[in-house]
Amino acid sequence: MSGKPAVVLLSGGLDSATVLALARSQGFVCHALSVDYGQRHLAELAAADRVARALAAASHRTLHLDLSQLGGSALTDTSIAVPTEGVAPGIPVTYVPARNTIMLSLALAWCEVLGAQDIFVGVNAVDYSGYPDCRPQFIAAFETLANLATKAGVEGHGFTIHAPLIDMSKADIITAGAQLGVDYSFTVSCYQADETGRACGVCDSCRLRRAGFEAAKVQDPTRYRDH
Amino acid sequence: MSGKPAVVLLSGGLDSATVLALARSQGFVCHALSVDYGQRHLAELAAADRVARALAAASHRTLHLDLSQLGGSALTDTSIAVPTEGVAPGIPVTYVPARNTIMLSLALAWCEVLGAQDIFVGVNAVDYSGYPDCRPQFIAAFETLANLATKAGVEGHGFTIHAPLIDMSKADIITAGAQLGVDYSFTVSCYQADETGRACGVCDSCRLRRAGFEAAKVQDPTRYRDH
Repeated sequence: MSGKPAVVLLSGGLDSATVLALARSQGFVCHALSVDYGQRHLAELAAADRVARALAAASHRTLHLDLSQLGGSALTDTSIAVPTEGVAPGIPVTYVPARNTIMLSLALAWCEVLGAQDIFVGVNAVDYSGYPDCRPQFIAAFETLANLATKAGVEGHGFTIHAPLIDMSKADIITAGAQLGVDYSFTVSCYQADETGRACGVCDSCRLRRAGFEAAKVQDPTRYRDH
Repeated sequence: MSGKPAVVLLSGGLDSATVLALARSQGFVCHALSVDYGQRHLAELAAADRVARALAAASHRTLHLDLSQLGGSALTDTSIAVPTEGVAPGIPVTYVPARNTIMLSLALAWCEVLGAQDIFVGVNAVDYSGYPDCRPQFIAAFETLANLATKAGVEGHGFTIHAPLIDMSKADIITAGAQLGVDYSFTVSCYQADETGRACGVCDSCRLRRAGFEAAKVQDPTRYRDH
């Protein structure tokens, strides 16, 4: 526990579990942060708990923030259906408004309290090319903002936003995580997982995940409802 | 109600009430957003309700976000005392980590859902010179981020972050608000107001507010506990 502290955003999904393993492998003492933003898939938060323990996070906090009050996304607004017909062009309805901006802001707040200068986030520009807040220029702009917004930034210490998955395919991510011993059976990616974390197998997230295991030639440990 | 929609961050204090009045006077249809970030002075949130009604906001939402879980500020961590000995140099202990970054992120999310392109925030670089997230360069960096982070930004509509008070003295703010008919008796600025909104009269925020009314030659309607 002698490494530098870092805050790692942990959703309970495959990507953020891999990020936590990567941050640890780089010697960071990892403080995992989950945000319950009123998403439908609370099973992901239970998964985040399992992942934080399995990967020996130094601490794990879950902040509650009910974005469903604002509506506007299939993931937080029950009046919008989760698509199951394959990936459509453009920005998907599962896009949560300003989600990564909010998550990084909360991570930044915790960094300041912990005296940490490093934030890890599992954004990916390959599979989520329709999400504006998964692009490298977004991450760079947030890093600039963080260094203007904060006491630590003003005092010259400075923050680094690490997005190690940003250019990786799902197969590359799974390969990297498997080499670091990530147990993906603990993770939940499905947009409409049931309470026990079983996946639907048909939403965009399930399709990408399943194809990733196939391409990586790693056995898929996902528990599907219909199989 | 035919103007452009805008999201106005409304704390219930003097500054944000003035911002709401200014935004309305510019013809915006104002949607007021308050954030209960676990601050001690819940009286401010009741004040926000009164102000939103008095200034005819089109809607008003309060999001709950318990930043006290992260600690680190006299305003959210009960183990840190609110100073009452006058304004100290440097960044005050009443600074809430990443507060304005978080508040603007939440306002941005609501903007996207509403289809709004304008955010109003009552930051002030004069009285709060020790707060990094009250400076013009912070506001500019957030505007850049907002236009990279969002569907509307990507599609070319673009956001403007309005910080109309940023260079104004407290007296200027009070003069502007009084001219627009703001009833400051509805507002609460005190860092340690009691449940009914009565002010302590001795914290930094009370001192600045009282001096502002004196300098503006506007009668101070604040209800103080000891008077």
